[in-house]
Amino acid sequence: MATNRFHDDASDVDGLYADLAAADLQPLWLQPGLLTRTPGRLAPHIWRWKTLRDLAERSGDLVGIDRGGDRRVLSLAHPDLGGLPFATHTLWGAVQFLGAGELAPAHRHTPGALRFVLEGSGVWTLVNGDPIHMARGDLVLTPSWTWHEHHNPGTDPMIWFDGLDLPLVRNLDAVFFEPGGEELSSYQPDLASQSEHGYASAGLLPSTDEPVGVGDPAPGRASRLLAYRWPAVDAALSRLIASTGHREASVRYTDPATGRDIMPTLRAEMHRVLAGHRTQPTRTVGSALWVAYRGSGATVIDGRRFRWTAGDMFVTPSWAAVDHQATDDADLFLLSDGPALEALGLARRQETQKQEVREDGLCGW
Amino acid sequence: MATNRFHDDASDVDGLYADLAAADLQPLWLQPGLLTRTPGRLAPHIWRWKTLRDLAERSGDLVGIDRGGDRRVLSLAHPDLGGLPFATHTLWGAVQFLGAGELAPAHRHTPGALRFVLEGSGVWTLVNGDPIHMARGDLVLTPSWTWHEHHNPGTDPMIWFDGLDLPLVRNLDAVFFEPGGEELSSYQPDLASQSEHGYASAGLLPSTDEPVGVGDPAPGRASRLLAYRWPAVDAALSRLIASTGHREASVRYTDPATGRDIMPTLRAEMHRVLAGHRTQPTRTVGSALWVAYRGSGATVIDGRRFRWTAGDMFVTPSWAAVDHQATDDADLFLLSDGPALEALGLARRQETQKQEVREDGLCGW
Amino acid sequence: MATNRFHDDASDVDGLYADLAAADLQPLWLQPGLLTRTPGRLAPHIWRWKTLRDLAERSGDLVGIDRGGDRRVLSLAHPDLGGLPFATHTLWGAVQFLGAGELAPAHRHTPGALRFVLEGSGVWTLVNGDPIHMARGDLVLTPSWTWHEHHNPGTDPMIWFDGLDLPLVRNLDAVFFEPGGEELSSYQPDLASQSEHGYASAGLLPSTDEPVGVGDPAPGRASRLLAYRWPAVDAALSRLIASTGHREASVRYTDPATGRDIMPTLRAEMHRVLAGHRTQPTRTVGSALWVAYRGSGATVIDGRRFRWTAGDMFVTPSWAAVDHQATDDADLFLLSDGPALEALGLARRQETQKQEVREDGLCGW
Amino acid sequence: MATNRFHDDASDVDGLYADLAAADLQPLWLQPGLLTRTPGRLAPHIWRWKTLRDLAERSGDLVGIDRGGDRRVLSLAHPDLGGLPFATHTLWGAVQFLGAGELAPAHRHTPGALRFVLEGSGVWTLVNGDPIHMARGDLVLTPSWTWHEHHNPGTDPMIWFDGLDLPLVRNLDAVFFEPGGEELSSYQPDLASQSEHGYASAGLLPSTDEPVGVGDPAPGRASRLLAYRWPAVDAALSRLIASTGHREASVRYTDPATGRDIMPTLRAEMHRVLAGHRTQPTRTVGSALWVAYRGSGATVIDGRRFRWTAGDMFVTPSWAAVDHQATDDADLFLLSDGPALEALGLARRQETQKQEVREDGLCGW
Repeated sequence: MATNRFHDDASDVDGLYADLAAADLQPLWLQPGLLTRTPGRLAPHIWRWKTLRDLAERSGDLVGIDRGGDRRVLSLAHPDLGGLPFATHTLWGAVQFLGAGELAPAHRHTPGALRFVLEGSGVWTLVNGDPIHMARGDLVLTPSWTWHEHHNPGTDPMIWFDGLDLPLVRNLDAVFFEPGGEELSSYQPDLASQSEHGYASAGLLPSTDEPVGVGDPAPGRASRLLAYRWPAVDAALSRLIASTGHREASVRYTDPATGRDIMPTLRAEMHRVLAGHRTQPTRTVGSALWVAYRGSGATVIDGRRFRWTAGDMFVTPSWAAVDHQATDDADLFLLSDGPALEALGLARRQETQKQEVREDGLCGW
Repeated sequence: MATNRFHDDASDVDGLYADLAAADLQPLWLQPGLLTRTPGRLAPHIWRWKTLRDLAERSGDLVGIDRGGDRRVLSLAHPDLGGLPFATHTLWGAVQFLGAGELAPAHRHTPGALRFVLEGSGVWTLVNGDPIHMARGDLVLTPSWTWHEHHNPGTDPMIWFDGLDLPLVRNLDAVFFEPGGEELSSYQPDLASQSEHGYASAGLLPSTDEPVGVGDPAPGRASRLLAYRWPAVDAALSRLIASTGHREASVRYTDPATGRDIMPTLRAEMHRVLAGHRTQPTRTVGSALWVAYRGSGATVIDGRRFRWTAGDMFVTPSWAAVDHQATDDADLFLLSDGPALEALGLARRQETQKQEVREDGLCGW
Repeated sequence: MATNRFHDDASDVDGLYADLAAADLQPLWLQPGLLTRTPGRLAPHIWRWKTLRDLAERSGDLVGIDRGGDRRVLSLAHPDLGGLPFATHTLWGAVQFLGAGELAPAHRHTPGALRFVLEGSGVWTLVNGDPIHMARGDLVLTPSWTWHEHHNPGTDPMIWFDGLDLPLVRNLDAVFFEPGGEELSSYQPDLASQSEHGYASAGLLPSTDEPVGVGDPAPGRASRLLAYRWPAVDAALSRLIASTGHREASVRYTDPATGRDIMPTLRAEMHRVLAGHRTQPTRTVGSALWVAYRGSGATVIDGRRFRWTAGDMFVTPSWAAVDHQATDDADLFLLSDGPALEALGLARRQETQKQEVREDGLCGW
Repeated sequence: MATNRFHDDASDVDGLYADLAAADLQPLWLQPGLLTRTPGRLAPHIWRWKTLRDLAERSGDLVGIDRGGDRRVLSLAHPDLGGLPFATHTLWGAVQFLGAGELAPAHRHTPGALRFVLEGSGVWTLVNGDPIHMARGDLVLTPSWTWHEHHNPGTDPMIWFDGLDLPLVRNLDAVFFEPGGEELSSYQPDLASQSEHGYASAGLLPSTDEPVGVGDPAPGRASRLLAYRWPAVDAALSRLIASTGHREASVRYTDPATGRDIMPTLRAEMHRVLAGHRTQPTRTVGSALWVAYRGSGATVIDGRRFRWTAGDMFVTPSWAAVDHQATDDADLFLLSDGPALEALGLARRQETQKQEVREDGLCGW
């Protein structure tokens, strides 16, 4: 049995507590919530495309791109995070709106970013000078500490989803930022970037030691392939479904030179669920942000059902039971902090029973 | 030049901002402090051994060990962290007091912990059932998800420094906790633990695939050697100084089966600085907590000088310039989040110029 | 100075040498050639396509496929290897001829093999049951210990180049062989194999832990992608040349799940040299076998020039200076033991001066 | 069924075979022994200490050390290897004799070597200038491409076992050799080498990036610890036996900075078997050379029993079933090519049934 030797002299104890506070010390025994049985610091949350799109467009009308870090970004602010502009403890999610003719000058930062295009085409993102064309469904990477700028030479706006590891990097107190010059770069438009010329052939790598295309942004630390095209992702999912005969499939975006995740902190995947199919509920340590790219359906998170259609974005918290059900054939883009959890020895995953739906999340919908 | 297209119609903009807030969105351009030029979210801070020891002893008198997670722990609460009981964004530091005859029953949790003994001897910590003797200067590990309990069968109290990755693990929402049974384990006292029988011979590993001693707590994730004895550390530092002829030396506590840090999240080192020597100032991304184990001296942190003697504990924040100067021959125990920063591709290190001392930190001292 | 204490009493020494021999011992001092200043145990050697093709066809007419391990294989036998059927100390090279309608039943062995198709199309190789279509220019893998059988249901013969690590594996005394049953497998012809359904999308991997398609032949040990199509290789080389502006380019065939070589023992690459260009001479530790796939030119090996046209095969020995010159645009397939040398810490590479041509190799040509 | 289309026109076939031979080609179907069901190219073999010691001493009397690569080495020449001075296809084993006052000047080579001392003490081996004291039972490494020289300033000869990967490196055609100058190095005798000052503390590594002591011989490729002392090995084995309660134990000599084998090609272990105990028979791919260091007993190899006493050396071939039985408490030093087999994906291991002894090997003994 544990020792029991508690003295109930309240005044002594009060004095002790006052002295502890004065000395910047806290007694663990007054912090009962620190070590929880399981994770679960956030609730699930959903943002609707209708709202996101409307507010992005209004921001485009009202706010010049020269404000706010030169980027017109609406960040998902989880209501459980006390006013911080973060989707989860580790993930930043946002909608970025770049109007016709707008240009966002170069900067770089240690948080890594990815862009998943939701609307528009014909924008160019330069990553360390390599011009990358953007169209709907493409995933474009701007890894940690790479220079990046955005050019919209066309006549239509573009809206993309921004995913970053900024909350994690900030919590590690590892944020560096450097603005570029005011002058924008000129570039030769080529529908395939230099990085794709070098790394977009499955199983074939340049047999030289020098990186091809973009100067290696962060050696060994992020994918050398900086653009993943929607038609290739679509075809890969179709082939997997045809080949396995399953009603679902998913692909992970990876560094073709290592097979590892696109960044040491971020995982990106595309999940396809065919109409009528419901996936196996699973719990995973680490948080995730999902963007419904195509189709409609619902996701059950710890017994609460969240219905979604294309463009909606939602958080699945750490260790929540999660399954997806598709009404129409659906594609869900996933952003998670999985690689960080794995690198730090904290990853766990568990398949669970089919979930009962106890309530509808955000029931007003 | 970046596009400049700001509309100054205040009422429209106010309406937009209100609608954004209602939709759990935040405009990036109103968050100027998110991307800082360099890290630096915390100030340095120091806690004095005189205070720590005094309050630990008073807690021993007044508060039974059955309170507060069955552990009598005073945690270092950095004043910049808004009341959280954390030393830095990622590191937990604390003083734990185990009185004569006291017993702390078993539990386990995903945050990994280490104990560095500051006072006393003759305590036993059981890690997954392996009894580890503790004496002043010893480092004892209780890695992630290992059962651990503490027994003080002697007549003197013990005080040790507790270091954990709890703030980091909590921020990743990866905390699991499980209490053990109420019954304490019995054990055969042996001054060398099973883990030392298997792994305490330099360059010699059991040539079987089965781990020796303690059941592998978290395969490949933490050191299989669970105790590092002060006499061995002392001798290693002396040999390095004799061998290099330098006035300083440091050793890293590592997993003898891999040469890697003791845990994927935590680095532990012992730094020896001979009397009169001052080390080269260095900036490192990631935060650290130092415990002066022996001797006295001062550490200059971004131009502020903090004097210390044995038992004092202080934080060096991310990217601060840090150098140490010894008055007497001194040994400084270091706890840092270095392995996490490295695994996530965020590590940077820079040697800087000799620092001018602009002011004394905590000058009342 | 080294000690000099040699006794010249011949009879004693003769007696010693006789006793040593009787005891299965040899004095090192009578083995002067063991430790050479540099590698160089083999001369370069070339085999002509005209001869290879003619003899393969005659073998097809005269020798049934049921002879000789059920494979009609003509192996390159380097004249410096004392009658062994090996191209180098570590590499097996051969021409295999599979006549119209012929079938080669399943077997498996620890030496890993690859097939590079030189003539014909419409053959199917089943690897652990996964049917892989073969056409000119394709590279098909049958990794270590995978079941493989060949079917030629068409009306034309196929000739391919066989590359194996058999000499290396044999020298390590690690050869295992197992014949399959007499019955041939039936299969569903699909121009893309199961392995390609899973792994032929650059930077996109199935996000499940289970391998897709073929049961994992040798986990982590060989590429999961088993077929590399010529049109993809051709396009990748064209893109690299367009992108870099160089007159040469090369790609390495790699495991898309790791970016590593196709097998732990074997490297495969395709080198393109444009007409008139001559590459930089290089020395590499380890031996290589080259197959001219397209075009014509010459390779200078330690000052000897070997001219080649499509189908010719030649050995470049360890540490020889090697450069290629193309007469027409040329593609050279490379097979080497590079990964083995690297894994064992023995790899070295050195660029050298432009070589003078001292003589023509095999000058009768 | 495999196709059967053999034409029995002998003259055509004979002509074909003649033309193949003239073209340096060999038909696989005339090479039936290439792909064996299991490994087994060598028989076991044993060399007796009595003979080895006697011949080493006679060589010391008769042959100056200036002969034969400046080393007085008697190499184990397996009778199945056609006169090559090799113990197995991959391993070199030898006895080296260094007389009182003798000096062997520096050289270096890519084959890696180790020395296990069988008799004598007080010799110094300099590895890249680091003087390493040698005494009975010590293991001293001279990794690939490190300068090494031997000094015997004492009055007694020393005999040690030499183990090298020379046959393997030679077969890979990767041998480089460089003689040093004629002048011998001077040195400060210190019973612990610089490498031990830096790396001989279990679980404690210098926390600097610069290697301590000897300039890094082959970065990441060989152990930074160059000497393993017998008393430490003896103690580690005793602790393992005490801790596990088994009648046998073994330790692997490893790089303390990585936990990996001492060299990428060579494994060294010490196996202790207590009197009366017989180990479990095991088959392993790869060959091994054992040196009985202490005690006596017998090893059964594929049913043949080989008795041994201290100093005897014997080969266990690839995939042979092997078990040891100790008459007295015995220590067996093992040298194998295990790391090479593992790196190349060819390792296999299997426990087998208790072996019947069918015959005594070298029965004259």
